[in-house]
Amino acid sequence: MPKSTTKISSAWRRKIHEVIYEADTPVGKAFDVTLLIVIIISVLLVLLESVPALGAKYADEFILAEWIITVFFTIEYILRIISINKPTKYIFSFYGIIDFLSTIPLYLTFFIGGINALLAVRALRLLRVFRILKITRFIGEADKLSKAIKSSLPKILVFLFAVLVISIIMGTIMYLVEGAESGFVSIPVSIYWCIVTLTTVGFGDIAPVTPMGQFLATIIMIMGYGIIAVPTGIVSAEYTTGGKDSDDSDNGKLQIEDPNYRHVNTQVCQNCMARKHQDDAEYCHKCGYSLDV
Amino acid sequence: MPKSTTKISSAWRRKIHEVIYEADTPVGKAFDVTLLIVIIISVLLVLLESVPALGAKYADEFILAEWIITVFFTIEYILRIISINKPTKYIFSFYGIIDFLSTIPLYLTFFIGGINALLAVRALRLLRVFRILKITRFIGEADKLSKAIKSSLPKILVFLFAVLVISIIMGTIMYLVEGAESGFVSIPVSIYWCIVTLTTVGFGDIAPVTPMGQFLATIIMIMGYGIIAVPTGIVSAEYTTGGKDSDDSDNGKLQIEDPNYRHVNTQVCQNCMARKHQDDAEYCHKCGYSLDV
Amino acid sequence: MPKSTTKISSAWRRKIHEVIYEADTPVGKAFDVTLLIVIIISVLLVLLESVPALGAKYADEFILAEWIITVFFTIEYILRIISINKPTKYIFSFYGIIDFLSTIPLYLTFFIGGINALLAVRALRLLRVFRILKITRFIGEADKLSKAIKSSLPKILVFLFAVLVISIIMGTIMYLVEGAESGFVSIPVSIYWCIVTLTTVGFGDIAPVTPMGQFLATIIMIMGYGIIAVPTGIVSAEYTTGGKDSDDSDNGKLQIEDPNYRHVNTQVCQNCMARKHQDDAEYCHKCGYSLDV
Amino acid sequence: MPKSTTKISSAWRRKIHEVIYEADTPVGKAFDVTLLIVIIISVLLVLLESVPALGAKYADEFILAEWIITVFFTIEYILRIISINKPTKYIFSFYGIIDFLSTIPLYLTFFIGGINALLAVRALRLLRVFRILKITRFIGEADKLSKAIKSSLPKILVFLFAVLVISIIMGTIMYLVEGAESGFVSIPVSIYWCIVTLTTVGFGDIAPVTPMGQFLATIIMIMGYGIIAVPTGIVSAEYTTGGKDSDDSDNGKLQIEDPNYRHVNTQVCQNCMARKHQDDAEYCHKCGYSLDV
Repeated sequence: MPKSTTKISSAWRRKIHEVIYEADTPVGKAFDVTLLIVIIISVLLVLLESVPALGAKYADEFILAEWIITVFFTIEYILRIISINKPTKYIFSFYGIIDFLSTIPLYLTFFIGGINALLAVRALRLLRVFRILKITRFIGEADKLSKAIKSSLPKILVFLFAVLVISIIMGTIMYLVEGAESGFVSIPVSIYWCIVTLTTVGFGDIAPVTPMGQFLATIIMIMGYGIIAVPTGIVSAEYTTGGKDSDDSDNGKLQIEDPNYRHVNTQVCQNCMARKHQDDAEYCHKCGYSLDV
Repeated sequence: MPKSTTKISSAWRRKIHEVIYEADTPVGKAFDVTLLIVIIISVLLVLLESVPALGAKYADEFILAEWIITVFFTIEYILRIISINKPTKYIFSFYGIIDFLSTIPLYLTFFIGGINALLAVRALRLLRVFRILKITRFIGEADKLSKAIKSSLPKILVFLFAVLVISIIMGTIMYLVEGAESGFVSIPVSIYWCIVTLTTVGFGDIAPVTPMGQFLATIIMIMGYGIIAVPTGIVSAEYTTGGKDSDDSDNGKLQIEDPNYRHVNTQVCQNCMARKHQDDAEYCHKCGYSLDV
Repeated sequence: MPKSTTKISSAWRRKIHEVIYEADTPVGKAFDVTLLIVIIISVLLVLLESVPALGAKYADEFILAEWIITVFFTIEYILRIISINKPTKYIFSFYGIIDFLSTIPLYLTFFIGGINALLAVRALRLLRVFRILKITRFIGEADKLSKAIKSSLPKILVFLFAVLVISIIMGTIMYLVEGAESGFVSIPVSIYWCIVTLTTVGFGDIAPVTPMGQFLATIIMIMGYGIIAVPTGIVSAEYTTGGKDSDDSDNGKLQIEDPNYRHVNTQVCQNCMARKHQDDAEYCHKCGYSLDV
Repeated sequence: MPKSTTKISSAWRRKIHEVIYEADTPVGKAFDVTLLIVIIISVLLVLLESVPALGAKYADEFILAEWIITVFFTIEYILRIISINKPTKYIFSFYGIIDFLSTIPLYLTFFIGGINALLAVRALRLLRVFRILKITRFIGEADKLSKAIKSSLPKILVFLFAVLVISIIMGTIMYLVEGAESGFVSIPVSIYWCIVTLTTVGFGDIAPVTPMGQFLATIIMIMGYGIIAVPTGIVSAEYTTGGKDSDDSDNGKLQIEDPNYRHVNTQVCQNCMARKHQDDAEYCHKCGYSLDV
């Protein structure tokens, strides 16, 4: 199997692959930096374009810039595909989809008819803001964070369910007590207000005016104040105990320490006697010989 | 004892019990899923019905749906009762009451005279929202969470008492400083505002306008900011130490076993007001004054 | 010395002392409960009296109730004084002052001339709200809480200083950027707004309108979001480590566990050979003989 | 080395140095206290001067006071420089710059032309508020705090990045859903609103009005409620574990020493896109494809 793959891949494809997918070589680093800058610029453009004053004044400049960026991303996307042996694997990966969404918006506008104010098109063009997700490629530590959150997710979900139940019941009561004249026009709106209050956000666009309503609001706030402690406590425990009491106890702890290290086992390659194979290795990293007997 | 129950319970009752109370058999699973869906639908109906636009437009549909759901819950309720040997035990259990409240609202509306806009009836029909509590049946982890909260409840209650005392005193002062023109129309309202501020909700429906009032508000906020740490800290400790030092009974035992600690009572020396006398003390350990009257 | 004090205290004084200062006897318990109820009623009266509608309608009832309560507290205050050998010690203690403040307001109104609307008198009569502090007598656990807070106070103070410095500097910058038209009329007001924002209270009575101002506000919020973690982290650590890393390490931990236990040492009474004396004992709790040789 | 310094430093310079830089001698203490008072006064002046009423009424007094303070700080600054052997080291230190900024504002106003209302000058004179930073000299504990924050900064930064990404994407969606009429006039403003909501500040100057918008707002709040736990958890862990697992260098070393872990690099297999290859790997451990180009 290694042989066959070696045949069908030419030198320049290897070169491209090295530049785009790896950051070890100077060229690879340069490419990453350029990509990072272009992503940030492209997102800033989306934001600024939405400012009425700027959007109107620099319409042409925005379109031009969008064209340049789209072309850049198009080339990147194509190179990413052709420099891999199994393109489908990349295309349907998380980043493959993000990269695709980062490229198409401008092209799609042709089929819908130019850059006009239709909601569909606006939505379409705002898709470009998701390019920000391309940056996550460069955030290694994010792994740790998301891991810590994931490990405490079940507890947090139960807690969120509790918040929801409380909001639905208290929201219904507030709707009954306050009524429409003070902004509690319907139960869904009351629930919205309840969550605004429980989470201690408190916009104040809706606020109780009756003594009874204010008394209930007080109880909701105190509850919110009390239960805000729960998710915090959960995550604190996660971090303090190094995620020890989370399901993936053994390697979970280590990846929280440093994602740049992988556990290696005592396997020895049948072919070249190489040791220190990663636990999930299927082929020897020294001679490419299959490890599963 | 199993014998006796086996005697008086026929096959079909066993079957029903298995379906309703257990989720091991496919039929039992199917029943749970159906129940879950019906509950969610019934709650959604209550919410949507309260939206003026929808409530008026689809009045008949809502009533029809409510009939179907009520019938469904009625059957469920009856089956739950007849399929148990000790129905009273279920009827007066938490879920028994919830199931009852989930069933009656529609029936009760007959006695009060049709579905009209009277507050009593509105309140009655909104009872249906408590059906959401039926879902808690399906949340196993909730136990763990509620246990953690319960174990740290005493500490949290003391803390809430502190919040209340602070709110009452600061609320009174704010009422004195700000006065009615800036929304602090009475001490209860000032206290309401104080809690809104201490809990960092901050609606802004009432806000201090005088420099002195704003200065005091600042102090209240900083206090709230400082004490929000307390419940969080408590729960964090709960989770981190696995609630080890939470159940006081344990520690109590331990300290009784510990010969270096003795229990002290609420006696106060008549002579020097010293407190913390040991239970078997006969003389004040501070001034040597006799303690027995 | 014990002898002498025994002489000057008669039986009825002992009885009163037992009733007022101790909760072991049924009479003592009854007294405490009565006191608790009267305190709560008296505070509720202050709150309700401030509600314009009620204050006007039930003016006479409020005055009558106030008279009864004042008389009650007066008697309690006198009894507390006469039933102790060293009254001054009580009078100038925390509760002594609270009890005094709880008693005088009504009397003072005579000298200022009846119950009128003057601020001085209003302030005077609102003093009664401090009666709420009399309740803290009944909250034993408060000791633990205040201890935990006290032990982490130095850290929290440094943190509050940081908040203050940030608020002063950012407030000044916001005042410069936003200016008077959007509510930032002066630096003190800007600082007030900064603290409102840093503490995540966010009343919204003042809010930035300029893009630059909103950008700075964002930074302030993120900072507030980041530093809210600090006091929480500190107190969490306090609780988790059982105040281990606080100065009073050894007994501090135990009092957090349970304030009803005191450490006893290996001292032995020279007179009656009694053991288990508390560390701060000066006289034998068995025979009243002096322990310091 | 002490010799050399002793030679070139005369007695009075030593004396000055002792007074200014040390707080051991009574004179040194006195100087510190004086300095502290002057700093606080000077900052209070800046704040009060900005209050329109006061600023106009006491214009002359403010200028006079400013002169006195400026002279005082000028002398302090000069003494600090001449009493050190390596002035440049002090001048370009944090406090050196703060001291300089605390001194110049008034002088600079000459070159720009008197104390007028120009923004430049206002900005210039408000520089004086940074004098507050001179106080940090007297806060020793701040070091500990800032160290704790610094050690958990990388984690917090990742978390802030997450907040930013969420805000940008949700902000864009809210802008699309709500539109200009309800205050979401542009994406940057929507992002501002998103951060206001995520951080639970919730000014309420902008609030969703459409059901869809309110629903999304609810999700954002719940998210904010959930992720507020993360920085808190991080700092709590910092404090609880005494920053033990905070400095990654340590862990790095440890894992290198641990023979069961190997460092993995950023290489990606050209054939199967497998990541986490060991540094010395020559073949992909997933598909056995050659890694060297």
